[in-house]
Amino acid sequence: MTIKALVWGENVHEQKSEVVADLYPEGMHAQIAKLLAEDAGISVDTVVLQDPEHGLTDAVLADTDVLLWWGHAAHGDVDDVIVERVAKRVWEGMGLILLHSAHFSKIFKRLMGTPCALKWREAGERERLWVVNPRHPIAEGLGEFFELENEEMYGEPFSVPEPLETVFISWFQGGEVFRSGLTYRRGAGNIFYFRPGHETYPTYYDATVGKVLRNAVKWAHNPQGRYEGVHDAPNVPVDKALEKIEERGGKLHKAGEEGFR
Amino acid sequence: MTIKALVWGENVHEQKSEVVADLYPEGMHAQIAKLLAEDAGISVDTVVLQDPEHGLTDAVLADTDVLLWWGHAAHGDVDDVIVERVAKRVWEGMGLILLHSAHFSKIFKRLMGTPCALKWREAGERERLWVVNPRHPIAEGLGEFFELENEEMYGEPFSVPEPLETVFISWFQGGEVFRSGLTYRRGAGNIFYFRPGHETYPTYYDATVGKVLRNAVKWAHNPQGRYEGVHDAPNVPVDKALEKIEERGGKLHKAGEEGFR
Amino acid sequence: MTIKALVWGENVHEQKSEVVADLYPEGMHAQIAKLLAEDAGISVDTVVLQDPEHGLTDAVLADTDVLLWWGHAAHGDVDDVIVERVAKRVWEGMGLILLHSAHFSKIFKRLMGTPCALKWREAGERERLWVVNPRHPIAEGLGEFFELENEEMYGEPFSVPEPLETVFISWFQGGEVFRSGLTYRRGAGNIFYFRPGHETYPTYYDATVGKVLRNAVKWAHNPQGRYEGVHDAPNVPVDKALEKIEERGGKLHKAGEEGFR
Amino acid sequence: MTIKALVWGENVHEQKSEVVADLYPEGMHAQIAKLLAEDAGISVDTVVLQDPEHGLTDAVLADTDVLLWWGHAAHGDVDDVIVERVAKRVWEGMGLILLHSAHFSKIFKRLMGTPCALKWREAGERERLWVVNPRHPIAEGLGEFFELENEEMYGEPFSVPEPLETVFISWFQGGEVFRSGLTYRRGAGNIFYFRPGHETYPTYYDATVGKVLRNAVKWAHNPQGRYEGVHDAPNVPVDKALEKIEERGGKLHKAGEEGFR
Repeated sequence: MTIKALVWGENVHEQKSEVVADLYPEGMHAQIAKLLAEDAGISVDTVVLQDPEHGLTDAVLADTDVLLWWGHAAHGDVDDVIVERVAKRVWEGMGLILLHSAHFSKIFKRLMGTPCALKWREAGERERLWVVNPRHPIAEGLGEFFELENEEMYGEPFSVPEPLETVFISWFQGGEVFRSGLTYRRGAGNIFYFRPGHETYPTYYDATVGKVLRNAVKWAHNPQGRYEGVHDAPNVPVDKALEKIEERGGKLHKAGEEGFR
Repeated sequence: MTIKALVWGENVHEQKSEVVADLYPEGMHAQIAKLLAEDAGISVDTVVLQDPEHGLTDAVLADTDVLLWWGHAAHGDVDDVIVERVAKRVWEGMGLILLHSAHFSKIFKRLMGTPCALKWREAGERERLWVVNPRHPIAEGLGEFFELENEEMYGEPFSVPEPLETVFISWFQGGEVFRSGLTYRRGAGNIFYFRPGHETYPTYYDATVGKVLRNAVKWAHNPQGRYEGVHDAPNVPVDKALEKIEERGGKLHKAGEEGFR
Repeated sequence: MTIKALVWGENVHEQKSEVVADLYPEGMHAQIAKLLAEDAGISVDTVVLQDPEHGLTDAVLADTDVLLWWGHAAHGDVDDVIVERVAKRVWEGMGLILLHSAHFSKIFKRLMGTPCALKWREAGERERLWVVNPRHPIAEGLGEFFELENEEMYGEPFSVPEPLETVFISWFQGGEVFRSGLTYRRGAGNIFYFRPGHETYPTYYDATVGKVLRNAVKWAHNPQGRYEGVHDAPNVPVDKALEKIEERGGKLHKAGEEGFR
Repeated sequence: MTIKALVWGENVHEQKSEVVADLYPEGMHAQIAKLLAEDAGISVDTVVLQDPEHGLTDAVLADTDVLLWWGHAAHGDVDDVIVERVAKRVWEGMGLILLHSAHFSKIFKRLMGTPCALKWREAGERERLWVVNPRHPIAEGLGEFFELENEEMYGEPFSVPEPLETVFISWFQGGEVFRSGLTYRRGAGNIFYFRPGHETYPTYYDATVGKVLRNAVKWAHNPQGRYEGVHDAPNVPVDKALEKIEERGGKLHKAGEEGFR
């Protein structure tokens, strides 16, 4: 079975910053997609902020197993309607992988329910990512750690909910640490936050980063099909109760009436 | 030290439904407040949806340690600006206790990042709440279980994130189960969801329910003062790095520039 | 890739109790193995308490991906050396599925670090297992709940650590609830506790129980190979430090010396 | 209410190593006790490995609210009977704080059910502990981080179960990271692992370390009294069922019989 991955790119700095355009002439999303395509079991497509509906129509999302999100300069330009649409699709079982500055994307903040803030420094310093959960599916094939010689620093405290599991913790040359690989489940959707990926460095040409992304796509994929019931709040009528009961006490709702939302 | 609790009441069915008005002539919020006031270490105030700013001004929230929330019919009438204000105050350390139908309140859905849906039946059936985490602070003084002879049924699946800890699980006469006491931490704020409390039954006259609410207020209280830094994403300049580093590689940001949000 | 499952059976009541012998003439382990063998992707073998080394030699464990454990009357007869051997293999990545009364097995208590106690009643009452985590891999293909018309009751509190995820919660006819499907990870090993399976009822002839067991085997399987490093506490010499440092301060250990255990 | 803390010291290197004896002439346990005694709400006593029953008689444990454990060279000399006694007392509600090399103590491994291994280097390098959970009770009064100029390095992977909450993560000068403050709950007992404290450095003279230890004692204290029921597996007779049921199906147990263990 092929997993259908979709890379969402903000595609702003690629147009505005010479440094970024030189590194990623086809756009960061294109390079991220190439990393995924190295695995024959993953089919990949890309969309960008500038596409109609940001490329995230109902039809596209329905046909996506795992969405990867890279954004930074234009979080505020993402339409709230689309954010809500993506959140719903995640709850229904679509995997979601948030990359680097996507910690401040609307969709991540929406799904976490917290500020998702952190400290940062753009100095091209060394980052060493330690695998704290060896043999986790997302760490498959990795050694005890891997290094990125030039990265932006992100430092704790990272104001996110306590994760399901912590997979990576980063050491930074300048003295900070960061929980760089965190898993969550929201509804039927698996969510992975992966820290590296600043646009002025060649992070998405790193082989280990590619391996992590492919692992994460496979981990996030929920093959059980769309779970639309996650939104429902059905009334169970008394005469359909699994155990026989008799109605008692005061009532607000008439038979068959919908609940309040 | 006295803990300052604030009970937020929707105060709609008390005005519209004779059943509810008879049970709670002063409003459900008033009766919930009475349960809390049984503990001399808790000072209590109440506000309602109909108050200006729903009673939740910045000044009021700044002076609140733990907020209790009961709403049902009018979730949609709560102003999004107020919801965001409450969420921020929770991240800064205010405790929040969600009661019964507040599972569908905007503030709970905002903080959970999930649909918070469930199944339900209004039949006045028996609910038995089992303590699955004995000696948890919220279960202090309770036996192995307690019963409510007439309650609305809420049934699994309850689409919320995996909690920090599960304190209560309910057995229902009609055949369902429900995770009735769940703890979360979001930012510096402690959050407790407590299931019972349908407005057509005398749940808030039950002594054990009162005990749980008082326990929950004490558990949710974070005495460390307002943590306003939770929202910040500070830049750490290279020359302020804790370990000496030299700037390398391409840059997006000029010195002293703010990050993107 | 075929997953190698091994069913460990205590095989005591099958010999001593007429009721059990009539239900499971070839032994419970044999019937559990038949349920697993319905999936062509799972190869199954069985061993019993009475085998030399309880059938759990180093060679057998090395060749096992997922071990299923059913025991009840003879927990105390399991050799502590074998228990320790199984625990080590779990940390190295072997999956482990604990069935019913195996809550009191030495191996489960060893891996949980808690009493694993619960309340019980042998009355053939109805159990209804609710899926609280829909679309979890272990709940694949299931509806919202499934029923077992006759089962032993297990009641909360169940003194186990807070799980990674709760998959099932049971409703019992006599008024109790129980967390019936719990996941844990210990080292590289995935662990699943599954409640049903009392030996005097035909539980292991139930199609849904079979489905859950096959799902659980696939979920518990860690395909990344044996992680023997989990036991190691290696010294990292100063001259092999990833960042250059100089030795300072007092010392206990001479260069190359092993740490204390 | 005064919290009764007890510091357990191995007291071996204080006798054998000149470096340690010079730093802690009265023993490390005595210095740790002094840090706790700075809070008038904590009463402190000390016992050592060399005491009869290692100082941990039933009477002493019954009278202890929170036990702190420092051991390194002589883990193997701790009597298994005493380890089991302490584990039981933890499940019943005694808090337990494991210090530094106590990661390999029998009691920590017993309660975690995992190897609790890590990598290490004794080079007196700089450790910086970042608070990843600001306003957690154990981080009360701390800034964003604190430093220890000379400490032993402990590096990930640390083979422990996923914690309830991560409070501290350490940065090491030589390039490693470590989860340095981890909380667990086992039965009614709160458990905290706190990394620093190598015996050849003056860590237990550090004011912030003292503050953390006092915070941890208050956090770990469960004021609800001894929960002896945690060990019980009571039978609930059919005629005592909370909901009326009739006995059905085959039986193993006669009325009133105890369960198997």
